[in-house]
Amino acid sequence: MVIKALTFDVFGTVVDWRSSIIRDGERLGKAKGLDIDWSAFADAWRGGYGPAMNRVRTGELPWTKIDDLHRMILDGLLESFGITGLSEDEIDDFNRAWHRLDPWPEAVGGLLRLKSQFVIATLSNGNVSLLTNMAKYGGLPWDCILSAELSGHYKGDPEAYLKAVELLSCEPHEVMMVAAHQGDLRNAANVGMKTGFVLRPFEQGPNGKKDLAPDPDFDFVAQDFHDLADQLGCF
Amino acid sequence: MVIKALTFDVFGTVVDWRSSIIRDGERLGKAKGLDIDWSAFADAWRGGYGPAMNRVRTGELPWTKIDDLHRMILDGLLESFGITGLSEDEIDDFNRAWHRLDPWPEAVGGLLRLKSQFVIATLSNGNVSLLTNMAKYGGLPWDCILSAELSGHYKGDPEAYLKAVELLSCEPHEVMMVAAHQGDLRNAANVGMKTGFVLRPFEQGPNGKKDLAPDPDFDFVAQDFHDLADQLGCF
Repeated sequence: MVIKALTFDVFGTVVDWRSSIIRDGERLGKAKGLDIDWSAFADAWRGGYGPAMNRVRTGELPWTKIDDLHRMILDGLLESFGITGLSEDEIDDFNRAWHRLDPWPEAVGGLLRLKSQFVIATLSNGNVSLLTNMAKYGGLPWDCILSAELSGHYKGDPEAYLKAVELLSCEPHEVMMVAAHQGDLRNAANVGMKTGFVLRPFEQGPNGKKDLAPDPDFDFVAQDFHDLADQLGCF
Repeated sequence: MVIKALTFDVFGTVVDWRSSIIRDGERLGKAKGLDIDWSAFADAWRGGYGPAMNRVRTGELPWTKIDDLHRMILDGLLESFGITGLSEDEIDDFNRAWHRLDPWPEAVGGLLRLKSQFVIATLSNGNVSLLTNMAKYGGLPWDCILSAELSGHYKGDPEAYLKAVELLSCEPHEVMMVAAHQGDLRNAANVGMKTGFVLRPFEQGPNGKKDLAPDPDFDFVAQDFHDLADQLGCF
């Protein structure tokens, strides 16, 4: 098996979106005197993400980048959570909380090891500028930023994976998709990519119910990025 | 003037293509016992690049990435320089000399300073994988890799610049094109981008004739990346 490049899902796989959104919400709440269950708010915001992308996938919406989908969901949540009195700048800044997500504790160290042997790239539904800002914020050492935005198709659609493989000048079997989500990996496998499952048991919080029983067809199953680097023979 | 991101021409502006190609040619010549004027070879290879891109621009060729244009030119040069006896692997490896171009001596240090204040991205006619490999080879600390490949239009065409600006989620006037080539900068200015001219007097070798009298409309004119970082107020 010759793997030349690793493409990473980002939200949940590389960064802990839930804790980070809760933290930014709490900061906003404190500044504005809001009494909100920010865990519920974060879960609802993330919960709106799949359905919003599906509206793009089905053609109900034209191509719309994640920043704009996040904002559409946020506008609805501000109303349903009864949050008023925020300026446009404050809402826009809170929407960009998704650019300020903290890496899982071992992510940067593990990525640096993987980078010594492979091209490491994002392959996220996040738009290029979001992923670029997040990499600066968290010190993520990507070799290049690839995104569903570059194909105009969200992951799930084969075009999203195949465009990344093409931009890497690779064959699908030379690229391994690394993700904490089994559906993402199965979709990558369907176009011929290799698959690396990373568990991330706390992605959905301490009480989250996450499917941690890996599909036996995956090429690698790892506890975290250091474990993946060990299995791939990186120093 | 609010500049958020800097996009860099790469061949000649960030890396010294000519010395690097000559070096790789000399290495190949030594290994294979070839007596070739590698300076003339490098200049001819680079000289074929503009006409080859023009064949794409005019529609004579469908979209063809630079790796493949370099190879088409190389195949012709091997014949005209009378070079025979190379294996397909050897020719392919020599073609990828363009992935192994050395940065100008101050480029990495200057980019690190600029990166502390701006998003720094490539905006090159080189394809994404070429630019990614070159960044790994030379330690170029890009925040993201943008390329003409992402628009399917070579620079000169406005689409190449506008796609990069769109992917950065910026307005054209918030992005500065940095290049050692005045035509590239004038094309960027035509879509509303800011312009930074970096001299690179030896791009075409010690005897090269390069137009170093900057267009007075450029926003910045710098000796090198440290000078540009100074003028932009970077620490």
